[in-house]
Amino acid sequence: MGKKQIQPTFGQIKEAYKRIKTVVHKTPVLSCSSINHMVQAHLFFKCENFQKTGSFKFRGASNCVFSLSDKEAISGVVTHSSGNHAAALSLSARMKNIPAYIVMPSSAPKVKVEAVKGYGGIVTFCHPTLQAREETAQKIINEKHAHLIHPYNNYKIIAGQGTAALELIKEIDDLDIIAAPVGGGGLLSGAAITAKSQKKNIQVIGCEPENADDAFRSKKAGYIIPSENPDTIADGLLTSLGTKTFPIIRDLVDDIVLVSENEIVNAMRLVFERMKIVIEPSAAVPLGALISGALDAKGRKVGIIVSGGNIDIKNISSIISKK
Amino acid sequence: MGKKQIQPTFGQIKEAYKRIKTVVHKTPVLSCSSINHMVQAHLFFKCENFQKTGSFKFRGASNCVFSLSDKEAISGVVTHSSGNHAAALSLSARMKNIPAYIVMPSSAPKVKVEAVKGYGGIVTFCHPTLQAREETAQKIINEKHAHLIHPYNNYKIIAGQGTAALELIKEIDDLDIIAAPVGGGGLLSGAAITAKSQKKNIQVIGCEPENADDAFRSKKAGYIIPSENPDTIADGLLTSLGTKTFPIIRDLVDDIVLVSENEIVNAMRLVFERMKIVIEPSAAVPLGALISGALDAKGRKVGIIVSGGNIDIKNISSIISKK
Repeated sequence: MGKKQIQPTFGQIKEAYKRIKTVVHKTPVLSCSSINHMVQAHLFFKCENFQKTGSFKFRGASNCVFSLSDKEAISGVVTHSSGNHAAALSLSARMKNIPAYIVMPSSAPKVKVEAVKGYGGIVTFCHPTLQAREETAQKIINEKHAHLIHPYNNYKIIAGQGTAALELIKEIDDLDIIAAPVGGGGLLSGAAITAKSQKKNIQVIGCEPENADDAFRSKKAGYIIPSENPDTIADGLLTSLGTKTFPIIRDLVDDIVLVSENEIVNAMRLVFERMKIVIEPSAAVPLGALISGALDAKGRKVGIIVSGGNIDIKNISSIISKK
Repeated sequence: MGKKQIQPTFGQIKEAYKRIKTVVHKTPVLSCSSINHMVQAHLFFKCENFQKTGSFKFRGASNCVFSLSDKEAISGVVTHSSGNHAAALSLSARMKNIPAYIVMPSSAPKVKVEAVKGYGGIVTFCHPTLQAREETAQKIINEKHAHLIHPYNNYKIIAGQGTAALELIKEIDDLDIIAAPVGGGGLLSGAAITAKSQKKNIQVIGCEPENADDAFRSKKAGYIIPSENPDTIADGLLTSLGTKTFPIIRDLVDDIVLVSENEIVNAMRLVFERMKIVIEPSAAVPLGALISGALDAKGRKVGIIVSGGNIDIKNISSIISKK
């Protein structure tokens, strides 16, 4: 572990939980005997697909919004993520009765735009380039004095996401392993801080698509190596680690394991068929690692953070038949 | 209510529950605020899609199997249903360590055959006619002395299915309405006996596809009018009421409401998108009735029995886009 104090601390995760526990769903932890039998381990699925706005992102977003003083909050919040974080930030802002400005590329799928608008987000379209998104967000910050809430490179976001693992560890005793998907690293780094401060012997494993393996490569190299043009069905994991999430993952996460596209699809299908719950491809990555053996957990108790369930039903069959 | 004592009695449902409560899952009751908002009522979804074998049918099947004496049981059980009842009977028999002979038409989808075999059922194929199925089943009865377990026209089946409503009523106080899909009528008649013996004021509503409306017409006429060539996406509801379920539905069910194919698909999609759970089309029929207004429940507390979640994922997108 590095000499510097890891940020955020577990104390900040507990504070976050105190702040948001009345607004988030305490999501259920499910088990499935046929899947346990298949992987020869005891799996505990922390179902953040049932979280408000359909993903764990609501934990971090609400922690940020409810951390703002009334004076700060009044000018609103802004982000240029167009996925689950945008929906989560929109609903969090609506619950505090402040505006959420969401910058989206003009190419964003209609279903995502509608979701954000449905939660009360104020959508501003821009050209589909990172530069245009950042410039448009900056313009809104200048005009409205709104607060930029980054989807993962933000300690309050990380602390909020860490509350999912906190609930899981409180509910299930003696977990040997916690496995979470890794994209920008907010969920994984929050889980690692919680787990390692609660149980010294617990292993924390990040699960990443082979086709977007920046966390795997960065952890190995010891410095951030962003993905270049990642292409995976796990659309929540296209982003690369940030300067705030990388050191936590470098120091506290035991291993990053890689999962192929086929294994992701297989795992997603298995969860649909056996557990009868809807999960998005990103959320299927840890189970994919267990099925393939990339994560060997025979005989052990594994907590899996099921990150979300936002998937366009119209696409499910084509996704499933891709394998 | 008729002069004759209704069969089974509520006492028999309580006995069934005593018999099966250690083998069935006590399924969760879920709510969804956005769907409540949409229909302006308080809905409580009794999630039998999470039941063993993926449907409520496991309740009735296990009640039958575990009612057999060891001497009776040893020769096994037989059925010529090829859907959820076949899977439920197969697993129930395996749990009692006796054979389950399942007669299936040679045209049955591979996914159903695999499901039955996966639960230990011994499949015998026959020509895809009702006559061939009955003859093949009779041949097995003659040869093996196995017990025929009809999927719904059987008092022990009805009593077993009635335990779903029993758990629901115990968990949620003061329901105004219980709504359940109706095909052969086992689930609905079991729910009606439970509900009416527990709460005089509760309404029990059967929800049926317009395209398979035999229960609606039979109840109106006062005698059984079977469906002729019903064609609905709700493939669990193609069967017509039986001689044992009809009198219960005639006497205890308050109303049968009809739901169009579009409304069934809409409701199924809504449950996927908002609740993130997988349900089969048959299970979506009651919510379809609430959304369309065929069942008007504004301001009331409605228990919905979500009958099952067995759907071939490969078909979901085409089902959804049918509307």
